[in-house]
Amino acid sequence: MITSQKASEIILNNTENFGVEEIPFLESLGRILKEDITADRDFPPFNRVSMDGIAILSESFSKGIRQFSIEGIQAAGSEQLELKNTANCMEVMTGAVLPKNTDAVIPYEQVIIENGNASIQIDEVKHLQNVHLQGNDRNKKDLLIQKNTVISPAEIGVFATVGKSSVKVAKQPKILIISTGDELIDVSKNPLPHQIRRSNVYTLVSLLERLKIKVQTEHITDNKPLLKKKISQFLEDYDVLIFSGAVSKGKFDFLPEVLDEIGVEKLFHKVKQRPGKPFWFGKKNSKTIFAFPGNPVSTFIGCLKYFYPWYKKSCGIDFQNQNKAILDNDFSFKPELTYFLQVRVENKNGKVYAKPIVGKGSGDLANLADADAFIELPDNKYNFKKGEVFPLIEYR
Amino acid sequence: MITSQKASEIILNNTENFGVEEIPFLESLGRILKEDITADRDFPPFNRVSMDGIAILSESFSKGIRQFSIEGIQAAGSEQLELKNTANCMEVMTGAVLPKNTDAVIPYEQVIIENGNASIQIDEVKHLQNVHLQGNDRNKKDLLIQKNTVISPAEIGVFATVGKSSVKVAKQPKILIISTGDELIDVSKNPLPHQIRRSNVYTLVSLLERLKIKVQTEHITDNKPLLKKKISQFLEDYDVLIFSGAVSKGKFDFLPEVLDEIGVEKLFHKVKQRPGKPFWFGKKNSKTIFAFPGNPVSTFIGCLKYFYPWYKKSCGIDFQNQNKAILDNDFSFKPELTYFLQVRVENKNGKVYAKPIVGKGSGDLANLADADAFIELPDNKYNFKKGEVFPLIEYR
Repeated sequence: MITSQKASEIILNNTENFGVEEIPFLESLGRILKEDITADRDFPPFNRVSMDGIAILSESFSKGIRQFSIEGIQAAGSEQLELKNTANCMEVMTGAVLPKNTDAVIPYEQVIIENGNASIQIDEVKHLQNVHLQGNDRNKKDLLIQKNTVISPAEIGVFATVGKSSVKVAKQPKILIISTGDELIDVSKNPLPHQIRRSNVYTLVSLLERLKIKVQTEHITDNKPLLKKKISQFLEDYDVLIFSGAVSKGKFDFLPEVLDEIGVEKLFHKVKQRPGKPFWFGKKNSKTIFAFPGNPVSTFIGCLKYFYPWYKKSCGIDFQNQNKAILDNDFSFKPELTYFLQVRVENKNGKVYAKPIVGKGSGDLANLADADAFIELPDNKYNFKKGEVFPLIEYR
Repeated sequence: MITSQKASEIILNNTENFGVEEIPFLESLGRILKEDITADRDFPPFNRVSMDGIAILSESFSKGIRQFSIEGIQAAGSEQLELKNTANCMEVMTGAVLPKNTDAVIPYEQVIIENGNASIQIDEVKHLQNVHLQGNDRNKKDLLIQKNTVISPAEIGVFATVGKSSVKVAKQPKILIISTGDELIDVSKNPLPHQIRRSNVYTLVSLLERLKIKVQTEHITDNKPLLKKKISQFLEDYDVLIFSGAVSKGKFDFLPEVLDEIGVEKLFHKVKQRPGKPFWFGKKNSKTIFAFPGNPVSTFIGCLKYFYPWYKKSCGIDFQNQNKAILDNDFSFKPELTYFLQVRVENKNGKVYAKPIVGKGSGDLANLADADAFIELPDNKYNFKKGEVFPLIEYR
């Protein structure tokens, strides 16, 4: 049995490249950018008026002129005008090009306008005041966003600004999520006393939706020939198979032997952790198989702890979860296993506290709805004190 | 001019209820639940075997029996079997119903099975060991998820478990996002020297996509009669209008007067903050109008700081942003305005640090892509010291 740390290492050494696709920029939120985005022109692209008011030549002010006849209006979106007489001024609007022969903007709050004349009410006018100079923010060809960035609304705005109506993003792997177990029935059905409804596949669908991955789901009964036939086919059709169930020691936990028989290489089976110990991971050529134990919390943490980083690294992000939280209650856990403790997280004055939400065992799905994260307690100790700091895995 | 705090107060006192709709559970991720979710049966619904192994009557073990003849197999998903002879055992699988006449499960690791007999290799067997008792996690009718919860993958799993194939969620408001400004052109077009591309509407589309709100967008040129005609129509068709631009002091900033003329009540115009000072907010009956200044950072922070909490409260969540961060560098800002400082956030050992990413002004959209949050610096001081703690608004 390997440690959780070793399991992560093996998984991250077995990533795959799914290539790149070009999509409309407005559909790219949450995807991973696969090209550098550079400025197509200077920003601002011209000497830009940054206050509504009047533009003058500051030299005229220095010479003692305080009252300026208004020659015209320079609106945002209009071609640059020219001030013909530098003893005059031009009304200018925020976002407009600064008129030729002017070099300073005085806001409306500091002038009185009467009968086509603007009287300046302040004692100092500086060269280039209230002018946002061409190229001040960024110059043409400057790198604005680096390749391998997760696209947020900020990036969407930058794409629009530089005219990237379509962008290159990491192509999503084709993923199938498969539940096993004869006790499972459909969500819409009424279970017999010995049956329960399928839930893990849907939790996984949602966890992957967060990564903007659209997945298919399947259910296979605990029937070895059927499993063999179906999985062989799925390996042809998908890049990744994620299983929930059939990896433990039960008589009908056929998955490890079936995967072996159809030529999938086992990279490990069983991890020193709770929940989720019987986790199985393997590959067949470029196809990757995550087989999580069937209980709800094992599948949930398995996806967050192992699949997410694998996916991110596969798409080019060197993801290292640096988030940590401060334990808010003493807690003890004896077995020599990494323990994923469910917690509720609270930010108090800039410090992240984690309060244990102790469920009734790894089958207690409702406990996941009471908590909002896991903290990862190492396997080399068993008393965890209030105030100690541990890695944090959030899911809200 | 009102303070940012007062602006928030007014906005939160002017929320709207958009009602409730029922949608397929698997489409509800990120939506706001509008019904309590209760357990439809006990969880587990039966005395559930929690290890693969054998089930016995512990009394038989107490009487000295160590070798048990295997009577049969109780698989997960099969009706409950009965152990006929309590000197025998039954093989049992994780997730199966505990067979009648048994009360303890011994895992395969602790028995040797040969010729149809299981020899127990341990010295103690406890009543109910490795049995997950019916109702241990939750009882029928227990409240599992409260109304007004934002739905995460954990809730999706609970919906599936209790058979909620459709769920009631807060209906989304119908929202239109409108840009103004004659300098703006389409993303796919090549700007003339005095033009720039529309970007704010798309940033807003993405910010609202995060809330699972699908919106429409429009552009109106700086033409007063046209603005009047179009906005009147939009107020009929939408619950919320979000504007970007035309709220400052410019000659073509027609929006405040147009809104006034068509009977929209101004609740405030101008907030003591930077960026985003000319922010205008008002209502006409049940219709709500957010009009943000046209520069990219003003619109961005306006949506996060004012629209997000308004939306959440409208949908029933008493949202109070408690997140804070520790300033990582000294910073000073003189004007008596609340300053929304762009920062990059880092979790170091459970503490959230915010490093200022100082852009070149509120027009510097690319700076948003370099940062990942804002911190809110109060208007009553101007020197902010490393180590001080301020409210945090994250957007990644």
